[in-house]
Amino acid sequence: MPKQKPTSGVFPVIMAGGSGTRFWPLSRTAKPKQFLPLATARPLIVETLARLKGLAPPKHAYVVCGAVHAPMVKKALPSLPKQNVIVEPQARNTAPAIALATAHVAHVDPQGVVIVIPSDQHVADVAAFQASLDEAIAVARGGHIVTLGIHPTRPETGYGYIQVGEPMSGNTRRVSRFAEKPDRPTAEQYLVSGEYLWNAGLFVFRADVMLEAFKKHMPELSKALEVVRGALGTKKEAATIAREFPKMPATSIDYGVAEKAENIAVVPSNCGWSDVGSFNALSEVRPLDANGNVSLGGPNFLIDSAGCVVVGQGKPIAVVGMKDVVVVDAGDAMLVMPKDKSQDVRKVVEALKAKKLTQYL
Amino acid sequence: MPKQKPTSGVFPVIMAGGSGTRFWPLSRTAKPKQFLPLATARPLIVETLARLKGLAPPKHAYVVCGAVHAPMVKKALPSLPKQNVIVEPQARNTAPAIALATAHVAHVDPQGVVIVIPSDQHVADVAAFQASLDEAIAVARGGHIVTLGIHPTRPETGYGYIQVGEPMSGNTRRVSRFAEKPDRPTAEQYLVSGEYLWNAGLFVFRADVMLEAFKKHMPELSKALEVVRGALGTKKEAATIAREFPKMPATSIDYGVAEKAENIAVVPSNCGWSDVGSFNALSEVRPLDANGNVSLGGPNFLIDSAGCVVVGQGKPIAVVGMKDVVVVDAGDAMLVMPKDKSQDVRKVVEALKAKKLTQYL
Repeated sequence: MPKQKPTSGVFPVIMAGGSGTRFWPLSRTAKPKQFLPLATARPLIVETLARLKGLAPPKHAYVVCGAVHAPMVKKALPSLPKQNVIVEPQARNTAPAIALATAHVAHVDPQGVVIVIPSDQHVADVAAFQASLDEAIAVARGGHIVTLGIHPTRPETGYGYIQVGEPMSGNTRRVSRFAEKPDRPTAEQYLVSGEYLWNAGLFVFRADVMLEAFKKHMPELSKALEVVRGALGTKKEAATIAREFPKMPATSIDYGVAEKAENIAVVPSNCGWSDVGSFNALSEVRPLDANGNVSLGGPNFLIDSAGCVVVGQGKPIAVVGMKDVVVVDAGDAMLVMPKDKSQDVRKVVEALKAKKLTQYL
Repeated sequence: MPKQKPTSGVFPVIMAGGSGTRFWPLSRTAKPKQFLPLATARPLIVETLARLKGLAPPKHAYVVCGAVHAPMVKKALPSLPKQNVIVEPQARNTAPAIALATAHVAHVDPQGVVIVIPSDQHVADVAAFQASLDEAIAVARGGHIVTLGIHPTRPETGYGYIQVGEPMSGNTRRVSRFAEKPDRPTAEQYLVSGEYLWNAGLFVFRADVMLEAFKKHMPELSKALEVVRGALGTKKEAATIAREFPKMPATSIDYGVAEKAENIAVVPSNCGWSDVGSFNALSEVRPLDANGNVSLGGPNFLIDSAGCVVVGQGKPIAVVGMKDVVVVDAGDAMLVMPKDKSQDVRKVVEALKAKKLTQYL
């Protein structure tokens, strides 16, 4: 579809507040997933910004993160204006973080189009991704809150889904409903039906449209947000954010706004998206050897082994006669587990906490 | 059986010339298996000497090893007289090594009883082991070459076997024949028959008896050995050994002497012997947790895992949802493999050689 002439700017907002445990021992409290070079040789957050190249001027990009990670964000993204690193006073799920970023964008461009994008995902086909975003931006300019929906390729139970509704313009569809993470049979029905897309946590909207949506669907958040907006650019900004942010309900943007809004639309996309949700996912996003192994940071020796994910730190790891296992050396800690148990790495984190081995968390 | 009054001394000869690869990455060219604390917290060679306590005066013990390992032997065994470290000019299998040690013993005590014992095995029941050796020593004094035969506990295909013959005195039997490493069906027959014992590479004999056996069964070796004997204790000793040792056929004592000698006997023993042949064997010799795991050098986190052997170096290793695998961190290299593929670790060593990563060999 042809690009509309922009009437206001486009502002990527990269969400980098995550602090998951699914990549332990590589990911730590001080260095969560988005700062790791998981899908390519560059950290996920660096790829995320690079993926938006051409959609918006570099100075329009924002990153929302926790205070402890702000220096790392600035270092990883040297093209980002330092004042565009928005620090969440505390982690309160996505709605408050998006609210804070939207306020910043509205401050400089009230009708600016915001692209909310997680910092820790991977996209194989960037051209297809940008084409989907171009369409989403155009629809957003018309007053819709637009989400990207990923064509599912397997009956995944780890994602939320979006049921598509009536066609709008181009590829864009109305949203019939947002569906929670399904059980396996439901996920299989979703896949077969062709009516469901993965919810990638990617939203495109005009700042003024989202502010209005907060007012309507999250009035408590909106009230605090309006106080923040009144203080932006003043000496009181930091103190006001510190005071008001904790008043915002710790709700996801999906639950707080997207599921309730009438003006919601979805652009289906087939862009080789992955949420890089666990070590298992490295088999999707990384090149495989002839036996389906991923081997990073070698010299690794994969002998009589297939389907494995082996991540080293420069010292040899020998994996002999193994199938579908994850072997990770982080230098100061190691992990070995079956690939399909990748989610269980949280049990290690719990055990480390229980033993107060906080230096490994 | 009652001890005979000793007419001459007993001289343990610990065979430490081995340089296997089955414990890579823990074992290296510079630090082979016998110097590793595999079965207990002390290196196998230290346990081997300790196991002989009371059978012979400390000053009677000898160790045969390669030049590169002599300093490590002296450091590991401070009670050993330094001049009792016999350096093989080169690795030439067991017959030349035993010949050299026998010459040394004969030099100080022509009828001295030699106990040849590998440096890299484990014995759980030391009292039973010593009782067997006491009997072997007594039989050896009468002019027999005596071997210890271990009651087999499984159809092991990795060991040689000894078929027992007619009873002699006490538990001692004549040897019907030495059998090579069998295939699995044969090993099962051996186990069921009750006639076969494992050949543990442990021999007890009078020095003069073995010198005579060499003369009879290995004349080429004997010729070189007699030249060495003539030079022992003289200024020419080192040069003579360096010149004559390479002339000795690189043959095992089993093949060169034991299989041919008439005066061979075996003392069956039930002493919890293990050759600690691979990481797999650590499950036999080390304490197991409630899920049958061996965990050394932690803090290791074995979660939903059973039958594993995990060896760390002080940094955490998390093993989640795994069954019967070996996970070893040597600090500068790592290994992961199924326990029943333990022998395949040599493939890693071959691969390291092929890539000329000699620092890891």
